[in-house]
Amino acid sequence: MKQYRDMTLPERQAEYQRVKADFEAQKALGLSLNMARGKPGKEQLDLVTDICGVLQKPEDFISDGIDVRNYGNVDGIPAAKRLFAEILDCKPEQVFVGGSASLQLMYDAIARAYSNGNLHSPQPWSRLDKVKWLCPAPGYDRHFKISQNFGMEMITIPMTPTGPDMDMVEELIRDPQVKGMWCVPKYSNPDGIVYSDDTLRRIAAMRPAAPDFMLMWDNAYCIHEFACDYRPFPDILRLCAEQGNGDMVWEFASTSKVTFPGAGVGVMATSEANLAYLLPIINVQIISYDKVNQLRHVRYLKDKANTLALMRRHAAILAPKFHAVLEALDREIAPLGIAQWQRPVGGYFVSLNAMPGTAKRTLALCKEAGVTMTGAGATFPYGVDPNDSNIRIAPSLPPVSELEQAVAIFCNCLKLAALEKLGI
Amino acid sequence: MKQYRDMTLPERQAEYQRVKADFEAQKALGLSLNMARGKPGKEQLDLVTDICGVLQKPEDFISDGIDVRNYGNVDGIPAAKRLFAEILDCKPEQVFVGGSASLQLMYDAIARAYSNGNLHSPQPWSRLDKVKWLCPAPGYDRHFKISQNFGMEMITIPMTPTGPDMDMVEELIRDPQVKGMWCVPKYSNPDGIVYSDDTLRRIAAMRPAAPDFMLMWDNAYCIHEFACDYRPFPDILRLCAEQGNGDMVWEFASTSKVTFPGAGVGVMATSEANLAYLLPIINVQIISYDKVNQLRHVRYLKDKANTLALMRRHAAILAPKFHAVLEALDREIAPLGIAQWQRPVGGYFVSLNAMPGTAKRTLALCKEAGVTMTGAGATFPYGVDPNDSNIRIAPSLPPVSELEQAVAIFCNCLKLAALEKLGI
Repeated sequence: MKQYRDMTLPERQAEYQRVKADFEAQKALGLSLNMARGKPGKEQLDLVTDICGVLQKPEDFISDGIDVRNYGNVDGIPAAKRLFAEILDCKPEQVFVGGSASLQLMYDAIARAYSNGNLHSPQPWSRLDKVKWLCPAPGYDRHFKISQNFGMEMITIPMTPTGPDMDMVEELIRDPQVKGMWCVPKYSNPDGIVYSDDTLRRIAAMRPAAPDFMLMWDNAYCIHEFACDYRPFPDILRLCAEQGNGDMVWEFASTSKVTFPGAGVGVMATSEANLAYLLPIINVQIISYDKVNQLRHVRYLKDKANTLALMRRHAAILAPKFHAVLEALDREIAPLGIAQWQRPVGGYFVSLNAMPGTAKRTLALCKEAGVTMTGAGATFPYGVDPNDSNIRIAPSLPPVSELEQAVAIFCNCLKLAALEKLGI
Repeated sequence: MKQYRDMTLPERQAEYQRVKADFEAQKALGLSLNMARGKPGKEQLDLVTDICGVLQKPEDFISDGIDVRNYGNVDGIPAAKRLFAEILDCKPEQVFVGGSASLQLMYDAIARAYSNGNLHSPQPWSRLDKVKWLCPAPGYDRHFKISQNFGMEMITIPMTPTGPDMDMVEELIRDPQVKGMWCVPKYSNPDGIVYSDDTLRRIAAMRPAAPDFMLMWDNAYCIHEFACDYRPFPDILRLCAEQGNGDMVWEFASTSKVTFPGAGVGVMATSEANLAYLLPIINVQIISYDKVNQLRHVRYLKDKANTLALMRRHAAILAPKFHAVLEALDREIAPLGIAQWQRPVGGYFVSLNAMPGTAKRTLALCKEAGVTMTGAGATFPYGVDPNDSNIRIAPSLPPVSELEQAVAIFCNCLKLAALEKLGI
């Protein structure tokens, strides 16, 4: 098979007819398939449903002498702090255990910077003319939407195979209006890139002009390998503290892809000084998060080793799904030279760069054939991909058989959009 | 027994010696008793612990076709909306079902007014020079702390036996800087007052100068009778809508005193127009609240009739505790003329007004003898009771035997503080 770029016009026209006919046949099936979000599939939910059985009798609800069924312990129960500290390789005293959503903890951390200011803030951010924020992209659309909600000026930082472009980051943080940065350091959303040791070192050693710079460290996929064994990852809190930057870092994680999405436990880890400053403010918002669910998780997950064993069972469900996507792309798209993609070993996404100018068209065609994908541009600040190229594929939700159908349609849409772009 | 005011100095001195000796004997017991917060007692927690058994098998988690174990439905599951709409006597479309804390929903509603503005806000409140807020007092300290956190100027509105002083409210809302008002309309915290029909009518018909005025309607004790049968209470959403004020009202409730405190379900009810405006903003903060816990509550509470039956079982536990407090006050304090108190039939508190200038001293003495109470002044804006008189008694947590000890100590402390004030 020739690459599309090397085809003559008549060759492209003939190819377009073939692919179009195939696409029309797929459309006629009237499918409704979803590869839009990183939602675990039913098999994964069933895998962990016995978590609901671990707390039953009144005496089950006592942990470290605390009756988790009553008010109190705004920062979470000690047993949950210990569990997440072990998983994140930080100290229990650095862990704040929240409700069912780490996104909420991130939003609230930034909301408080606006309403109250952080420990080292000269004033609440709501008083500032402008707040700028560094956004490695492609990145997580929900991060960018938080920044946008608070009216931040988002600055796109290109992602490299080792993490964000640190030359650019180090230059930009000399501006005191640059108040923070989004990071998904392990299996980045959507690229699946793991920040290199050198990137981690440079991040921890940053010297931002803003005294209250927030390194938002969304370690969403900290134990989420699907194609290899668990790979330890350095504790960013320690790295930052070693560089005198202990109060700069805000780490987040959750069990949304360990137990139940949106009904697990979210955590925030930051310096003890930050927590001491924050707890009275958090306590204005909430008396205590759901400690029953915290203890349910502690009893179910037990410790890091047991949690990693569970993650291997998730991986056994996820790996064939990622394989189906990559295998189809390798077979159908690679020979045509119309897209590149990452081959992640963890996380929840395959990031694909289509021929520039064809991402939106590809996804519009997908929609026509009943395949829902994350919107084109979503992985960039303000939802605008300057190259109209990046597409985030989320293979976790559909069963493999449906996924194979969806990817087949997606491949045809990539082809049609590329051929249209090249001229037919 | 003479009233203290009518005693001669030698009589007061003799009385002081008697009470002081009694107090010293109590102190020597080295007790540690808590009447500080409206925390349910262990017997109440045990009563509802079987809620943790209602969801077990994968098929249990499907509700209206939604698998509650996965992401989605930021506004809550339909079955939970229906349940709380029945309890609050509003429409399911008006109900937003959140996480485990209604306080968080209140804080977040106000935080969004600051960051984004409300539906009818000319601009986000963070851009305003000043926001003023009406605070009926005595009131709930956590409400006042939210206002204080956002730098509002709090204006104290005296409570009357029929609710807030509405003449004063109607006058003050002519100021466009007055942006809202806290209300606990049924069994107010701490007075246990139920707003009268006339008060409700005047509140619903308010014409605030601020187009985005927030009537914060914390219906925390909507089904929380302990000394009588359930008493229906008008739906404030309907009352406001009838007066063309549909978007003014924000109602809150939770199951924190129905199932587990801090691990129940919190809800917000407001106009459909407000919800349509808010949901995209809320969705920036969170993908979805804990729907597993929402469904657990739906399956356990079933409907309003069943929930009210459960509340009668809570009442059977609470009533003797309130009785113990009121009985001791009637016996020990009433003859002395040194305090007045409310006789609530619902809610979680007994509000007592000690002789002016003696509340702080009374509670300091309590602390000395091992009895923790809500801090004096907490029931007023900025934590300052101008009369140093109001004391909130929370009898729900201790078992009756401990409560009797605690109230006996409290009575002696009231006496000592009054005698000191009168001169000894």
